[in-house]
Amino acid sequence: MNASQKAYDQLIARLKQAALLSSCSAILEWDEQTYLPADGASHRADQLSMMAGMVHQEATSPETGDLLNELESASEWEEDSVEQANIREARHEYDRMTKLPRQLVEELSRVATLSHHAWVKARKENQFNDFLPWLEKMIGLKREQAASLGSEGQTAYDALLDEYEPGATSEMIEQAFTPLRNELVKLVSAIKESGIVPDVSLLTRKYPVAKQREFSLSAAEKIGFDFNAGRLDIAAHPFCSGIGPGDCRLTTRYDEHHFPGAFFGTLHEAGHGIYEQGLLKEYFGTPVGSSTSLGIHESQSRMWENLVGRSRPFWNCFYQSAQQQFPEALADVAQDDFYRAINDVRPSYIRVEADEVTYNLHIMLRFELEQALISGDLQPADVEAAWNEKFTSYFGITPDTPANGCLQDVHWSAGLIGYFPTYALGNMYAAHFFNAADSELGGLDDLIARGEFGPLKEWLNQKIHQHGKRYRANRLLEVVTGETLSHVPLVDQLNRKYGELYNL
Amino acid sequence: MNASQKAYDQLIARLKQAALLSSCSAILEWDEQTYLPADGASHRADQLSMMAGMVHQEATSPETGDLLNELESASEWEEDSVEQANIREARHEYDRMTKLPRQLVEELSRVATLSHHAWVKARKENQFNDFLPWLEKMIGLKREQAASLGSEGQTAYDALLDEYEPGATSEMIEQAFTPLRNELVKLVSAIKESGIVPDVSLLTRKYPVAKQREFSLSAAEKIGFDFNAGRLDIAAHPFCSGIGPGDCRLTTRYDEHHFPGAFFGTLHEAGHGIYEQGLLKEYFGTPVGSSTSLGIHESQSRMWENLVGRSRPFWNCFYQSAQQQFPEALADVAQDDFYRAINDVRPSYIRVEADEVTYNLHIMLRFELEQALISGDLQPADVEAAWNEKFTSYFGITPDTPANGCLQDVHWSAGLIGYFPTYALGNMYAAHFFNAADSELGGLDDLIARGEFGPLKEWLNQKIHQHGKRYRANRLLEVVTGETLSHVPLVDQLNRKYGELYNL
Repeated sequence: MNASQKAYDQLIARLKQAALLSSCSAILEWDEQTYLPADGASHRADQLSMMAGMVHQEATSPETGDLLNELESASEWEEDSVEQANIREARHEYDRMTKLPRQLVEELSRVATLSHHAWVKARKENQFNDFLPWLEKMIGLKREQAASLGSEGQTAYDALLDEYEPGATSEMIEQAFTPLRNELVKLVSAIKESGIVPDVSLLTRKYPVAKQREFSLSAAEKIGFDFNAGRLDIAAHPFCSGIGPGDCRLTTRYDEHHFPGAFFGTLHEAGHGIYEQGLLKEYFGTPVGSSTSLGIHESQSRMWENLVGRSRPFWNCFYQSAQQQFPEALADVAQDDFYRAINDVRPSYIRVEADEVTYNLHIMLRFELEQALISGDLQPADVEAAWNEKFTSYFGITPDTPANGCLQDVHWSAGLIGYFPTYALGNMYAAHFFNAADSELGGLDDLIARGEFGPLKEWLNQKIHQHGKRYRANRLLEVVTGETLSHVPLVDQLNRKYGELYNL
Repeated sequence: MNASQKAYDQLIARLKQAALLSSCSAILEWDEQTYLPADGASHRADQLSMMAGMVHQEATSPETGDLLNELESASEWEEDSVEQANIREARHEYDRMTKLPRQLVEELSRVATLSHHAWVKARKENQFNDFLPWLEKMIGLKREQAASLGSEGQTAYDALLDEYEPGATSEMIEQAFTPLRNELVKLVSAIKESGIVPDVSLLTRKYPVAKQREFSLSAAEKIGFDFNAGRLDIAAHPFCSGIGPGDCRLTTRYDEHHFPGAFFGTLHEAGHGIYEQGLLKEYFGTPVGSSTSLGIHESQSRMWENLVGRSRPFWNCFYQSAQQQFPEALADVAQDDFYRAINDVRPSYIRVEADEVTYNLHIMLRFELEQALISGDLQPADVEAAWNEKFTSYFGITPDTPANGCLQDVHWSAGLIGYFPTYALGNMYAAHFFNAADSELGGLDDLIARGEFGPLKEWLNQKIHQHGKRYRANRLLEVVTGETLSHVPLVDQLNRKYGELYNL
């Protein structure tokens, strides 16, 4: 074994150790959102804060720095090889982590846990002011974090964004968002003018929770999520957590009188889960065994949720069993009416329940507000007013309560700032990938209509999942599709689908 | 602040840090038994093994040793004070831990996790031989552990026992068990000769699981378990885990056609939980904030399960609501017949479902077998035959399957050897404590019949729980009751209760 190989193996062992420790935190975090008793929040904050500090210590050990220096001065790594990617991404992470004082990492973790619980309560009680002190504390810490992380010429916001979408900048995102925004506004307006208004009341009939759970589980399993290596539980704000090999956890929430929430939510999280389950087990704990970016992650979840789950062929395959599962709600509903209802486009308050067209506008609003919060142009105390004002100008309606407005999302309470734009990036990536799969697999519509999800899942496994962080998001897009990120594929898909639905 | 006080504060901070880390493991262990996907077992073994090593490192740090030396040479600690107890017990734990090599601790943890999953499968499939390799591995590790821990003149088994019942020896236990065994055999035989055989078929009628859950939850809450600071979930082998302040978790299992399992199981675990919830939060992580021994722990669980839950006054209070909860099963059943059924005494295979009288014989059998396993007088390969032979001689019946025999309990798979005798100790302690409470509170029967559990719970909080490890088990018994451990109170209680039931 040559010296570089030895150093490489040592680096990998160190990375795996830190990841194993971090995966213990992931269970504590999952538990916090699913099963933690109310009075256990403070102890959980102590646990997570300590673990964050230990992960930080492990990830910033000087030995890792020495190994990286040694490996970078060797030049034997092939372009795009697993080794090169692991060294590149380990360096990126090491540099980020060493810029952060351990105390700040622990404090961010502790405040995130406590702030999360304050948010749950404030949202339930519809009191923005009860959450405000936590938001202030969190924004303060995130500004501090951005100041530690930031490099020459980088905005504070971009320093945060880089954690979720490595290499992305808000300028780049804005370049994609601007034409997308224009096209979406046109489409929303054309839909409004069409005069066609689907009957969505059929989606709020009675859908017994146990039946919803059964139906969601079965759909998630059919599209390829492996429940021997995963679970589905309930959480106030649904998420997917890839704990480690053989253990990936989805969450959803049920409302007896709202079918789409749990069903499409589960497909969405199962899409994340299929990505996590598609990472190579032997690379667990290394960059190449980890998802490449949140934008790519969202491309997977949004693809299964929308491009598959809200498509006509999907319901050609599933509608009959939906009627059998929910006879009270659907026996007298024609498939076409159901299909129109689940694709109803109209301004609404809640992002996670928004249709595919207006969804991205919800993201742009958050993207603008959080940039202003980090730059200091917006103060936390003014968030509620700013939200409502912007929302009214984007959607033509004003949130009636904070729970339907600035308190609806978990992210800011958890310190996830710079995360939102990855959702819209995901929609754009998904459109690129879906077109490529469609053309390479000889037409996805027929496969989906026959309930054959295996070919698409395996295509995603091969083209995207198994590479982990071997390629960064834009490079992955290029490798898989030969294209660079653009709003055009998404806009074309939306115009085609909704043009047909609304006779445009 | 004097020097000793400073050293004491530093010691406490160190102990709390180790306990906080350990409480993270406790969540991983709880999750392993409740929600872990099948394919996640190997990753979980890696997580727990790493955590065990880290806890070990923290608990054995030379700085802790130095602090203990310094504190022991100071002499200002009052007899029975919190400080003295914390130093005494910290020393005990430190000495135990430093005797164990970290590698052995990690290996024990890793094997326990994997072995547990092998046991679940082997038990389900009724194949002792599938579990045998794991049992061999575990017994080998436990012998190694005993060899590391043992001190001059101590048997290997006693070195293990000391972890669960500090200060206890098998000789001392045998001294209590021998007269207890004689009295129990007499009582069992008298019951058999009475010719009275309660109709237990009413307990295996249909008790819908959701209704059982509701009823068990409500009973656990009524006796004083706080569900804002705890939960009840399902596990193959029920247990209680006190994670930390505000977070204590009970588990049970349901069988639609067996009422006592989940109901008395939940009361039992709630008894453990009430102890955990009664520890003082401010002492969390220190010996005085931790339960004193498993024997005392069992005294709490067995008291609520049996002395309260299987008593006549308890059902005076609860039977009407049981009938309302389970009309299909109980509408036509007289309270007295129900009371007789839940107190039916007869030889049976499964320890956790055994009546109060034969229960202790199940323990003695295990106590004898595991002593032989550790001394080497019994080889793991011979466990099934030895179990069946001994069982036949104790109970007059022979287990029909390994699942009803030597595969029924989780303990050995998890490395819990030396744990079983604490159950029977618990029964004896419970009898002592219950008599004392009865006399100090002016008659428990009336309180229980009125559903007033508060006075007993608070008495236990005051007399037992809040002290944690301030007193070791026997000293606690002396402080609370003025008595020393004896089989007499338990035998008297059993003779009185079953004398009345069986006209003896």
